[in-house]
Amino acid sequence: MRVALGQFNAIVGDLAGNAEKMRKIWAGAMESKVDLLAFPELAVCGYPPEDLLLKKHFLRDNRLIVDKLAADFPDKTTIVGFAESYRRKCYNSAAVLQTGRINKIYRKGLLVDYGVFDERRYFQPGTRPVVINIAGLNVAVTICADIWDTDWLAGSLRDTNQIQMILNISASPFHLGKVEKRQEIVSRCAKEFNCAVAYCNLVGGQDELVFDGSSCFVDSTGKFIAKGRAFAEDLIIADVIPSADGTVQVKPIKPRAPQPTGVLDEVYQALVLGTRDYARKNGFEKVLLGLSGGIDSSVTAAIAVAALGPENVVGITMPSKFNSPETISDAEKMAKNLGIEFLTIPIEPILKQFDQALKKTPGWDSKGIAYENLQARIRGCILMSLSNQFGSLVLTTGNKSETAVGYATLYGDTAGGFAVIKDVPKTMVCELAEHINKTAGWQIIPADVLNRPPTAELRPDQKDADTLPDYDLLDKILKGYVEQDKSAQQLVESGLPKDVIMRVIRMVDRNEYKRRQSPPGVKITPKAFGKDRRLPITNRYNSFDDKA
Amino acid sequence: MRVALGQFNAIVGDLAGNAEKMRKIWAGAMESKVDLLAFPELAVCGYPPEDLLLKKHFLRDNRLIVDKLAADFPDKTTIVGFAESYRRKCYNSAAVLQTGRINKIYRKGLLVDYGVFDERRYFQPGTRPVVINIAGLNVAVTICADIWDTDWLAGSLRDTNQIQMILNISASPFHLGKVEKRQEIVSRCAKEFNCAVAYCNLVGGQDELVFDGSSCFVDSTGKFIAKGRAFAEDLIIADVIPSADGTVQVKPIKPRAPQPTGVLDEVYQALVLGTRDYARKNGFEKVLLGLSGGIDSSVTAAIAVAALGPENVVGITMPSKFNSPETISDAEKMAKNLGIEFLTIPIEPILKQFDQALKKTPGWDSKGIAYENLQARIRGCILMSLSNQFGSLVLTTGNKSETAVGYATLYGDTAGGFAVIKDVPKTMVCELAEHINKTAGWQIIPADVLNRPPTAELRPDQKDADTLPDYDLLDKILKGYVEQDKSAQQLVESGLPKDVIMRVIRMVDRNEYKRRQSPPGVKITPKAFGKDRRLPITNRYNSFDDKA
Repeated sequence: MRVALGQFNAIVGDLAGNAEKMRKIWAGAMESKVDLLAFPELAVCGYPPEDLLLKKHFLRDNRLIVDKLAADFPDKTTIVGFAESYRRKCYNSAAVLQTGRINKIYRKGLLVDYGVFDERRYFQPGTRPVVINIAGLNVAVTICADIWDTDWLAGSLRDTNQIQMILNISASPFHLGKVEKRQEIVSRCAKEFNCAVAYCNLVGGQDELVFDGSSCFVDSTGKFIAKGRAFAEDLIIADVIPSADGTVQVKPIKPRAPQPTGVLDEVYQALVLGTRDYARKNGFEKVLLGLSGGIDSSVTAAIAVAALGPENVVGITMPSKFNSPETISDAEKMAKNLGIEFLTIPIEPILKQFDQALKKTPGWDSKGIAYENLQARIRGCILMSLSNQFGSLVLTTGNKSETAVGYATLYGDTAGGFAVIKDVPKTMVCELAEHINKTAGWQIIPADVLNRPPTAELRPDQKDADTLPDYDLLDKILKGYVEQDKSAQQLVESGLPKDVIMRVIRMVDRNEYKRRQSPPGVKITPKAFGKDRRLPITNRYNSFDDKA
Repeated sequence: MRVALGQFNAIVGDLAGNAEKMRKIWAGAMESKVDLLAFPELAVCGYPPEDLLLKKHFLRDNRLIVDKLAADFPDKTTIVGFAESYRRKCYNSAAVLQTGRINKIYRKGLLVDYGVFDERRYFQPGTRPVVINIAGLNVAVTICADIWDTDWLAGSLRDTNQIQMILNISASPFHLGKVEKRQEIVSRCAKEFNCAVAYCNLVGGQDELVFDGSSCFVDSTGKFIAKGRAFAEDLIIADVIPSADGTVQVKPIKPRAPQPTGVLDEVYQALVLGTRDYARKNGFEKVLLGLSGGIDSSVTAAIAVAALGPENVVGITMPSKFNSPETISDAEKMAKNLGIEFLTIPIEPILKQFDQALKKTPGWDSKGIAYENLQARIRGCILMSLSNQFGSLVLTTGNKSETAVGYATLYGDTAGGFAVIKDVPKTMVCELAEHINKTAGWQIIPADVLNRPPTAELRPDQKDADTLPDYDLLDKILKGYVEQDKSAQQLVESGLPKDVIMRVIRMVDRNEYKRRQSPPGVKITPKAFGKDRRLPITNRYNSFDDKA
């Protein structure tokens, strides 16, 4: 049995466009004489379609597309994920297209409701397995989480004949450690059921999520035989061959695609794809961003250039009297190194006018935090004005550490359409900078930028370290508190300093309102701010006070 | 059996504070010699606690509070809603406190996952009924949605003895039509089970939600006998008395609380309570807002004054050359009528400086939309600067119609902490203005403000009608498209003009990104923007294109 996995970049809601892509892939697969072609979970409508699923006409249109695809794919077997409406209920389904019609439908049994997922909001769980026979082999059709719980799957398949292959169509988004976790799952599944597994994952960016693809074939010993590209479209084809001894072998028909070189490379590629797809899928050709000469905006600019090309990125420096000549020249150097357009718009005269207008209000302080924030907001206004005038998308440059503790000005440096590195902790931003330079083979990001102590430059001689703990320590606390939901007590017990923990937790809790109004950005950690972490703004919980 | 319903305003996460409130209510109830006192759903932690429920220490602290309350409430029976952790699962539970301990625990059976609710993200459904005997009467304990499906409830209670009273503890948020819907449900439940129903609802604002209270007692014929206050705390007490003929009577022990005068009054009270609680629960004493002399900011200011008192509201007018003398004077008149502080900060000099800075960029247009938005953003900067300087909360003044079609400037008029009327359609804002004047008995909101055609005043002689359809028509389309998820086709079939429908749908879809970054505000319609309506930003679905 020759099987192809059509790992493609679907666009949410673009039913006609997604169908067109699948038609092209189908034609290619037929040329390679495949018996079975699979597309990812909800391939027809993209993932996650969210509340589009509450529109009856959307579900009807989904079905019309599947009917058309069935007619367009008369030869062999094609599996297509779609949102199915049936007797007033909705299912996350896989249509089995054969002989010009929908021959069977499998409905996802294990719906997920954690992290970024809300499947119970829309779907009912399916209750019946679907096993199809292709070229003499029994193939069980499954969707995403169905193979993550092998006990459940064994129960679901208990009355079926021996299976030679489990096909899984997925929309499994990337985060750090996910690729390995998924490999474990797929491999374990193959071993437990003593069959091959063909795993077809979605690829592409969708708002905060990036699907990494990495579709694969595993033989019945759990060994990876064929693997598709990560963060790019691919058609992975292999022959699945049962042996007389009951094992199932897999033979790839092309060489294995090159894989990311490591975790940093995965993150880098996720950020590039997420940025490219957010811009392109939302109709933006160009992006612009403030270049401060600091590491965050430098890394963001490098990612933007990799995503969209230097001709589509504009860097703007907006100096005030607090910016040092060094940072201004580093911003310019960075722009030059990347080959992007560079504008300078000084904010001092505007700041002066604001200050004069506000000074008339008794109590206004021309040196305080309000005045510092004002500088960031003037820059936000300038970027948004250019965005409005030229139709460019503004990229913001805040990292996860800042975002967590609210070390950012709402409507200032948070103003923009897409927050490229919002889920990247500061310590990892530095590693990414080095990764970018290493991959390029030269210092695209100047050494000064890498070595200068971080500063917001909103008052004389300001350093991040005046306000925040050292980033190494901060990122450790944030990982425990934000990503792992640890209590202050647990963090203290892990050996971190109590006073800093308490301060950081308070900052994280109090700044939920800022994050709520910040732009979306690529999720790369197991728990990102956004729909992955849903904390109330109005929240008086304090684990230290409320104990006992 | 004497039953008391402790309808109180819990604060999410404030476990100790909520417990303290319950202790005071318990003491009062004991003085009235009640046999059974009930508190709302998740009374210990407030509703909805969202991802606080993913923290193990939060669940542990919940339990510690319930244990303490059990010890503090040794007499009679008290029912307290709390988040229960049991064998690594989490339940939405009601503890039955008797003789100083937790005697029984009921676990909510029907979890809700539509609209603003995400209960499956956190909770497992309970599977066993809990019926307690108080003073010889059988009382079934239920939680919120459990009584909304009487078939399910009948199944759950099928093996129990005849029940004389169903107690339901709820956290049921307000929206238009909800109060009547809930009355229907409670009344139907009483009739179907031939028993009294005691319904104890939460009250108070929590981010986007307002719980209206309106707790009540219904006799076994489904008749409302006692009803608590709406949008305020209350202790409702009644005697529940079974008759020889099998019916159950209810006798209130105090006169019925005054109720809202109608739908507009409900909305008004919801907005006032939502605004007050958002400010107070987040630690803000004062609020400030831009007063333009238009109806939206006038209504918002009146609500703010009702919520927080005139001494805590500051109105700011920020005229440019495009503001007419009439609107400026109406803004001032409005401030005077409300008795609030009033500041004038002209933006013209700042606008000129921005324009000069931006003019150096080839292609900048000093008359275009970017220039219009800039004016709104300068005002946003001024308001946020005052907010930062004085610690006041900025209220935004955009209505639902504008929010829907994106007729607002991101980081401009959308800049602020709380969007009071974000879910009120423009046509209802006008009705609210009249309601406010009528209730006051004089024209707090000047007649000119009510009668002037809506205008953003960002260019000469601008009117909303230049860009948007008539608000009557716009609000009809929005109700169908946004609140009822109707397709363009269905709206055309209902007799609305197709070209306007298409234009409005496009505007709504394209402006999801603006709403995503807008502040929270009170939900008053069946479907508000926010977590009630989760549409992707990246979304190419177009029901007209994708059909057939």
